[in-house]
Amino acid sequence: MVEIAVMGYGTVGSGVVEVLTTHNSSITKRTNEQIHIKYILDLREFPDSPLAERFTKSFEDIIQDPEIKIVVEVMGGLHPAYDYVKRCLEDGKSVVTSNKELVAAKGAELLRIAQENNVNFLFEASVGGGIPIIRPMSQCLAANDVIEVAGILNGTTNFILTKMIREGMSFEDALALAQKLGYAERNPAADIEGHDSCRKICILASIAYGKHVYPEQVHTEGITRITLADVEYAESWGGVIKLIGQVSRQEDGRLQILVCPMFIPRDSQLANVDDVFNGIMVRGDATGDVVFYGKGAGKLPTASAVVADVIDCAKHLNARKYLYWEEGGKEYVADYLDRETAMYVRLKGEQPEALFKQAEELFGQVSRLLRKGAEEGELAFVTPVQPERQIIERLGLLEKQGAQLLNTVRISDF
Amino acid sequence: MVEIAVMGYGTVGSGVVEVLTTHNSSITKRTNEQIHIKYILDLREFPDSPLAERFTKSFEDIIQDPEIKIVVEVMGGLHPAYDYVKRCLEDGKSVVTSNKELVAAKGAELLRIAQENNVNFLFEASVGGGIPIIRPMSQCLAANDVIEVAGILNGTTNFILTKMIREGMSFEDALALAQKLGYAERNPAADIEGHDSCRKICILASIAYGKHVYPEQVHTEGITRITLADVEYAESWGGVIKLIGQVSRQEDGRLQILVCPMFIPRDSQLANVDDVFNGIMVRGDATGDVVFYGKGAGKLPTASAVVADVIDCAKHLNARKYLYWEEGGKEYVADYLDRETAMYVRLKGEQPEALFKQAEELFGQVSRLLRKGAEEGELAFVTPVQPERQIIERLGLLEKQGAQLLNTVRISDF
Repeated sequence: MVEIAVMGYGTVGSGVVEVLTTHNSSITKRTNEQIHIKYILDLREFPDSPLAERFTKSFEDIIQDPEIKIVVEVMGGLHPAYDYVKRCLEDGKSVVTSNKELVAAKGAELLRIAQENNVNFLFEASVGGGIPIIRPMSQCLAANDVIEVAGILNGTTNFILTKMIREGMSFEDALALAQKLGYAERNPAADIEGHDSCRKICILASIAYGKHVYPEQVHTEGITRITLADVEYAESWGGVIKLIGQVSRQEDGRLQILVCPMFIPRDSQLANVDDVFNGIMVRGDATGDVVFYGKGAGKLPTASAVVADVIDCAKHLNARKYLYWEEGGKEYVADYLDRETAMYVRLKGEQPEALFKQAEELFGQVSRLLRKGAEEGELAFVTPVQPERQIIERLGLLEKQGAQLLNTVRISDF
Repeated sequence: MVEIAVMGYGTVGSGVVEVLTTHNSSITKRTNEQIHIKYILDLREFPDSPLAERFTKSFEDIIQDPEIKIVVEVMGGLHPAYDYVKRCLEDGKSVVTSNKELVAAKGAELLRIAQENNVNFLFEASVGGGIPIIRPMSQCLAANDVIEVAGILNGTTNFILTKMIREGMSFEDALALAQKLGYAERNPAADIEGHDSCRKICILASIAYGKHVYPEQVHTEGITRITLADVEYAESWGGVIKLIGQVSRQEDGRLQILVCPMFIPRDSQLANVDDVFNGIMVRGDATGDVVFYGKGAGKLPTASAVVADVIDCAKHLNARKYLYWEEGGKEYVADYLDRETAMYVRLKGEQPEALFKQAEELFGQVSRLLRKGAEEGELAFVTPVQPERQIIERLGLLEKQGAQLLNTVRISDF
């Protein structure tokens, strides 16, 4: 019998309890051990729950109980999750979490503490919900140098973009629908501003390259500026707009990492990842492109990933999994303005034809894009690949010629 | 330092040596151990290889060397691979293999011997080449009941079908091209007759449901009967033809498992898996659909999966991974004729309109399919879902009415 505690009884926490209960016999068979929930930590009361007597409001009950070997942290947020997790690890308890904010901010430190105390700190559910990605990346792809990771990491924004692309819905209407369906929170900033994707690409980058990338090091743009005009231009270009988290390593060892909407060609494996689904592409030097696809969120998918980690901990109570990365550093992430990219540009001006000629002079070959129902004076084109800094300078020159810049979107290279 | 031996220096074996050599420093970092190739077993000689002095023609050198802790079996075929692997495991050496024929035929027995000797028997590379699938299924999805697994498991046939679909190439021409490009063997039977896919779905079924399924228990059809007419009808139906391995569990606990071409709707995540790529969909009760996509074969992808297993063995020299399934049994697989399916039917007759009416009378609602350039007397339709046995009986009645049955293809339910 392995005694565990679950901290947080929200959507994921109640899902974890449900999965552990409904799959009890198959899990016991796989683990050769019974997993027993001894405590559930939540400040609220659940008198009608069949597990009512296992609820506690005090973390001390958990930390001071030597029988507890594994603690599941599904409270979310940095505080008090960080302190609780740290104390558990220091006390020799393994921790499983779905908390991407915690892992993205404190992963290296918590992994080091876990190592020092010979326990495990696992977080498969923190990226991609029920899609196995953390373990495949750290184990199966261990014999590869990772060239690039790029993914659609947030289901809410992907749902909104899918509605805009497929049904011509406006951003505002699509967001309202996502909120109505429970996909987006009342305060949707973490999703639509890209912060959630940013945390996830930080975690993937840290695993792929062995060194922590902190969210504040990542240039992050959300989807709030994307309009139906951009969606239509993407279609005329031959693709779709997706919110992408991407990381690759430069020759000097520093990372290029960013989160932003991108134009994705229609034949990319990520172009067909629609609705609330996530898709993550890992490009290895030996294995080539591998894509993982599935529901990136939701109660049961996320809970099943948490429970799989709990099973793994229960099987390895006295052995360390080799998930590990070092602390990062200030110089580790390169300036995103030095990154080379092609760029979609939408602008308007009184003399769009003259502006197009000037764009051609500034950028060399540019591909003009057209759409039905374009507004008067509207001009859209795609620049050749060049450092982003240079694109911005050149667009500044166009603005001096009377162009009013409406939007820019990077073109993906996958 | 962990000493290993590599048995077989063909495509995969030389790839394993290459990956271990080129990624030596990153692997050492991940493993905290140096992995050293002490022997390479091959009957041929490689005097120009930098590792020439490590080659041996005698298995006895390997089995009798107590320093060898991990043996890589990449010879392929059942004999002598089976005897060698068995002896290694019995001798307390962990074994990593890419040999799907071996795992599909002897997996349960070899896993039991590995367990009895407290060593590991790993075979990530046996399915999906470089795509992580064995480990995610056995670990990450451990908290799920698997409802269904369906996959495009063979790159050669997928390449041939893609050429037929995209370029209207005949089966024979596409096969010749695949051979020219090195995707298909001179004797392509194992691929085009479905045997390779059959071995792989057996392995996935054994993992998913914990009990061995043997290839001879699986109804297997290849793609040799697929014509361009079928490809065109699939398109008019709204999809594509793919060679699918599929398994699900019936309510009585027995498995429905088969390998055959299927009509896949265009919006299925497997419909866009083209060329030599593989795609595997795992439907879990908690996690929903998860899809794994990548190159299912090739020297370096397969080798990198083998090396990842070697790393895992090196990290777990004294700990067992919990990959395991029981021996199967005769009654474990249900008769495929009892499986319910919709069926595409192509036939011809002197009076196709009369035959269509009779088909409607026999089957109830049938959907007629049309194509440009149909031959005289040709008729194609899709039946409603019903047990396959019943479809065959009814088609028999149509044949008695003068229909000449040209082909049938099952319709997928994913």
